[in-house]
Amino acid sequence: MSVRVGLLGATGAVGQRFVQLLDDHPTFEIAAVTASPDSAGESYRDAAKWRVDTPIPEGIAEMTVRETSPDALPDDLDLLFSSLPSSVGAEVEPELCEAGYVVSSNSSNERMAEDVPLTIPEVNPDHLDLIETQREQRGWDGALVKNPNCSTITMVPTLAALDQFGLDRVHVATLQAVSGAGYSGVTSMEIIDNVLPHIGGEEEKMETESRKLLGSVDDGELSLHEVDVSASCNRVPSLDGHLENVFAELDEDPSAAEVHEALESLDAADLPSAPGQPIHVFDDPERPQPRLDRMRGKGMQISAGGLRETAEGIRYNCLAHNTIRGAAGASVLNGELLVEDGWV
Amino acid sequence: MSVRVGLLGATGAVGQRFVQLLDDHPTFEIAAVTASPDSAGESYRDAAKWRVDTPIPEGIAEMTVRETSPDALPDDLDLLFSSLPSSVGAEVEPELCEAGYVVSSNSSNERMAEDVPLTIPEVNPDHLDLIETQREQRGWDGALVKNPNCSTITMVPTLAALDQFGLDRVHVATLQAVSGAGYSGVTSMEIIDNVLPHIGGEEEKMETESRKLLGSVDDGELSLHEVDVSASCNRVPSLDGHLENVFAELDEDPSAAEVHEALESLDAADLPSAPGQPIHVFDDPERPQPRLDRMRGKGMQISAGGLRETAEGIRYNCLAHNTIRGAAGASVLNGELLVEDGWV
Amino acid sequence: MSVRVGLLGATGAVGQRFVQLLDDHPTFEIAAVTASPDSAGESYRDAAKWRVDTPIPEGIAEMTVRETSPDALPDDLDLLFSSLPSSVGAEVEPELCEAGYVVSSNSSNERMAEDVPLTIPEVNPDHLDLIETQREQRGWDGALVKNPNCSTITMVPTLAALDQFGLDRVHVATLQAVSGAGYSGVTSMEIIDNVLPHIGGEEEKMETESRKLLGSVDDGELSLHEVDVSASCNRVPSLDGHLENVFAELDEDPSAAEVHEALESLDAADLPSAPGQPIHVFDDPERPQPRLDRMRGKGMQISAGGLRETAEGIRYNCLAHNTIRGAAGASVLNGELLVEDGWV
Amino acid sequence: MSVRVGLLGATGAVGQRFVQLLDDHPTFEIAAVTASPDSAGESYRDAAKWRVDTPIPEGIAEMTVRETSPDALPDDLDLLFSSLPSSVGAEVEPELCEAGYVVSSNSSNERMAEDVPLTIPEVNPDHLDLIETQREQRGWDGALVKNPNCSTITMVPTLAALDQFGLDRVHVATLQAVSGAGYSGVTSMEIIDNVLPHIGGEEEKMETESRKLLGSVDDGELSLHEVDVSASCNRVPSLDGHLENVFAELDEDPSAAEVHEALESLDAADLPSAPGQPIHVFDDPERPQPRLDRMRGKGMQISAGGLRETAEGIRYNCLAHNTIRGAAGASVLNGELLVEDGWV
Repeated sequence: MSVRVGLLGATGAVGQRFVQLLDDHPTFEIAAVTASPDSAGESYRDAAKWRVDTPIPEGIAEMTVRETSPDALPDDLDLLFSSLPSSVGAEVEPELCEAGYVVSSNSSNERMAEDVPLTIPEVNPDHLDLIETQREQRGWDGALVKNPNCSTITMVPTLAALDQFGLDRVHVATLQAVSGAGYSGVTSMEIIDNVLPHIGGEEEKMETESRKLLGSVDDGELSLHEVDVSASCNRVPSLDGHLENVFAELDEDPSAAEVHEALESLDAADLPSAPGQPIHVFDDPERPQPRLDRMRGKGMQISAGGLRETAEGIRYNCLAHNTIRGAAGASVLNGELLVEDGWV
Repeated sequence: MSVRVGLLGATGAVGQRFVQLLDDHPTFEIAAVTASPDSAGESYRDAAKWRVDTPIPEGIAEMTVRETSPDALPDDLDLLFSSLPSSVGAEVEPELCEAGYVVSSNSSNERMAEDVPLTIPEVNPDHLDLIETQREQRGWDGALVKNPNCSTITMVPTLAALDQFGLDRVHVATLQAVSGAGYSGVTSMEIIDNVLPHIGGEEEKMETESRKLLGSVDDGELSLHEVDVSASCNRVPSLDGHLENVFAELDEDPSAAEVHEALESLDAADLPSAPGQPIHVFDDPERPQPRLDRMRGKGMQISAGGLRETAEGIRYNCLAHNTIRGAAGASVLNGELLVEDGWV
Repeated sequence: MSVRVGLLGATGAVGQRFVQLLDDHPTFEIAAVTASPDSAGESYRDAAKWRVDTPIPEGIAEMTVRETSPDALPDDLDLLFSSLPSSVGAEVEPELCEAGYVVSSNSSNERMAEDVPLTIPEVNPDHLDLIETQREQRGWDGALVKNPNCSTITMVPTLAALDQFGLDRVHVATLQAVSGAGYSGVTSMEIIDNVLPHIGGEEEKMETESRKLLGSVDDGELSLHEVDVSASCNRVPSLDGHLENVFAELDEDPSAAEVHEALESLDAADLPSAPGQPIHVFDDPERPQPRLDRMRGKGMQISAGGLRETAEGIRYNCLAHNTIRGAAGASVLNGELLVEDGWV
Repeated sequence: MSVRVGLLGATGAVGQRFVQLLDDHPTFEIAAVTASPDSAGESYRDAAKWRVDTPIPEGIAEMTVRETSPDALPDDLDLLFSSLPSSVGAEVEPELCEAGYVVSSNSSNERMAEDVPLTIPEVNPDHLDLIETQREQRGWDGALVKNPNCSTITMVPTLAALDQFGLDRVHVATLQAVSGAGYSGVTSMEIIDNVLPHIGGEEEKMETESRKLLGSVDDGELSLHEVDVSASCNRVPSLDGHLENVFAELDEDPSAAEVHEALESLDAADLPSAPGQPIHVFDDPERPQPRLDRMRGKGMQISAGGLRETAEGIRYNCLAHNTIRGAAGASVLNGELLVEDGWV
């Protein structure tokens, strides 16, 4: 079976990761690429200044870049992936859904909307049920599904694994790679020999998205999880891979060994791009490290380490590749789930 | 008045900072420098491969490096500063104190001993009273005074300012510069495009030293503060300046503005190297940043920023220059306090 | 004596260096600052996101930013410094000169024009004679004087010192800091764990500007030096300080010691911002290094090292602070020369 | 066919690359690993702190590390690879050759000896003829073959391709990655925000090894090439990949297009680890870049770019992965050549 996909915002840093990940995908086939109007009509090779460290796929390189609008897309696409800037996404994605397209989107717009599934397949695949609510309320033939922010997705699978111990409150500090801000988001003058202690909107995203992801959907209605998350987000001079220090307060009092076991026992998703084990836990307290461990599971496995019992629960570190597991790969995985569950 | 000082471990990264800071000190005059036996007999210029970004002071450059032992030091020194490796400090510092020297030490040995003052002049100058206890118990003519670890000293003055609101529990994550590990402590292969999530012993130091610094000394007896500190310590690719994300749980419920006010109101120390205001608070959430702000107050002022009220208290960032305020400058300041209080 | 200066393009990376350098200048007083029309009317504090590691001078912070045009400037300015983008400079600088202003400019436009002095005070102060030619040909009351590109200015004083040995051909490779591209010129994604082997137009600038700087002016007419310069320019992950590897082919056959002597003997300029000795030569082959040596002479001294005789001449390294000696400081020095020689 | 190989100095940075490269080699099978006496008896997993970004091969992880001496090695090895420190190599390699082992070595000792082949399979495979001379003169049953220094090997294949135009003189400046100095060779304090303009012995290696590699072997006798090479070697803050700026003076006057053609026409070696095309030439002057291009051809292809005609010849850049093509991969390739030519 082949699923013909369109790639919205295909020339940016995340867009290029989509192209790289989809290059040898077992079922998805890139059939259209879009970018800003400036680039429309150019070849993908010319429009995207290719910066990924594998060669540009030749089949995509010669594709003509289209505008990002329902009219400019071919009719026979089965699925769209979106890494549009959120302001553009906010405008175009609803038009596309109304026109009947199913969109798996990495853009931040509407992530917290009550009728939009915000999904990680290993955490809350059943939230796709919200699509029914969405179609009813919005009168769409298509559907809009979101994946969370890269800093959220690094942590939430670990929280999902800990929820069995009564997840109460979380403090988290992030050390985020520059690629999370896009290709030009962080200048070298800002970050060499430095750390940036503020990423606009990032802390709020972690605090709110986590509660939605860990929440439940019953009869098409969303309930947020009650966990209280406080985040401090920092940008550091690494290229890829967000490392996060988590302090979790738990109702129960599991040992570090029990937490280790719980983290490694999170159920895998049976999807082509999903790692066989969602979370790998290191015994060595010096791991995970961004450069050494971000590519575990082709960039889709989350790593954890540094488990230590505290007075009120457990502290640990977690790591994920922010533009693969945290962005393009997250959308691809949601796309695979949409196919698996029959929405595509 | 001139105070003749000896510098123990003068050739390392912190030792060079001592030389730089003392070069134009109003009262302290370097009269002797020591290093490991390998270097004894060499000129300081040859023994210390000078790497600080100001020229080597000519007067010190031609001094002959001595061994680090009571016998090798001149008799007429008034005060010793120590940045010895802690294993060496553990052996030599007691011998020197027994021989009558007053030692202001940055080395980590004995920091938590009940009769050794662990002091930040703006926080707990009265802990010097422990010197009486120390002399009684150990039979010393000299005295041993310690400053805390660089990661601790960055945070504790801010906690001292918050204690008026009932300091209950603290979660802190650090983003520490490579100079904190000494000149050769972190290789370039380890840290370029990377973060190291573990610094041996660092988290325990922050958790225990904080309680001692914020504790009280009555009748020569030390009581620890009851605050519960949980720390996660990371090494990042910056040269100097430790940035820390603090989440403080407070009994009271001050506004961010009240916390801002409290931080800037911490009493200054009336000592030559002390900044006029110990803590500067930025309104701009993007500050403080290590490279831009570490040299405030000649590297002795602590910066804070990113204040935000949380459900249980306040979160904020703080920053200090780790080899000045956090090491050499901390010892110099304690030395000035020892002079001021008549111990020297 | 006070000289009232206007600063064109005052909010960029080089503009901020101008403000920093002029803050405590003995004679120059900033009386006006300009920026792009977007910023006009704002305070300098708001328009310039201040990123230099010393505090923003309070007197300048509250100045109102003006547009960059003759009409928008006060009449009583004695001198203008320009760090405009070259396309803007090409348009506005002639208008200002026609309106009677004397402009000392760091912008690259018209650097190679035959009637525009391209000057380094220690190398070719007499090229200011071209101002007469310029006024005659262009009918200006004012004057336009340029300093060379930052990569050129690092090398040319050393070549000037070697010219006594018959300078024949030069091969040079540069390792240039990111600040040379302006605050946003090099993204972190481009340069972390990387080197960029191409800087648009830079090699040609080094090859042509060198010949003009080393050339002669007789009777108001310029003759280029005959030296053949081949340059390879690279961007590396350092913040400030261009390091250059030079291979100079000479007609004569001086020893490394003679070259050392010649480099250190280049005549100093008797101007407030000029270093007492233009070039410092290190014996240690590991120096100069950008981070350790860029601030020698307050960023105005050039360093050299690694001298080694070759079959055809001499190889050595040289280093200068690219935004001080190589940009803002270069213009300030030319401004001081213009005052000294009576053009202002 | 399976060739049983021993790996001398298997735990260092280059040693780990050997293990990684040989993990799925079609013919070579690691049968023994050695390290310094301290590690002898430990498992490879414990002795080598594994830092490569692919998992440690399980089969090797459990091997017991041996001492590096003829007595400690099994008798049934067909070939040894050596990445010993040169002082150790100088002592042990001759003992091993005397004991009958064939050694393909990356260590720098004896590279310039007249009877030791210094070989790059695409450049001078016939230099293996020197083994006859070596055996005669030294009375060995085994053989010692060397590959050149990592900075040399990046450039020499390009020079070999240019020799048809009459290679006369070369100026080269290198921008070398930190991994070239071994895991602990460059500290983070040295290189962050900096460049090191000196690498001990490196320039001489480039200048002498190039002449041997490009020279000829007739009747078992070596003649050096007459090209005059002048090198300036710099360390920059990149992890892997040496970039070099070459200025080649040629007797003939080829166009840039002819040089492009010549570089891409260098004959490939028909060996398992050899790239199908030894040198790839970019038209884009911004390439090659270390991070983007070092892994071309699994780290074995050399890249070139930035071709520009000069008065006396051609300037261009070249790049190779310094620990693959420039070290472990170079030795493996020589090992494959030794097998192919029947020496093993």
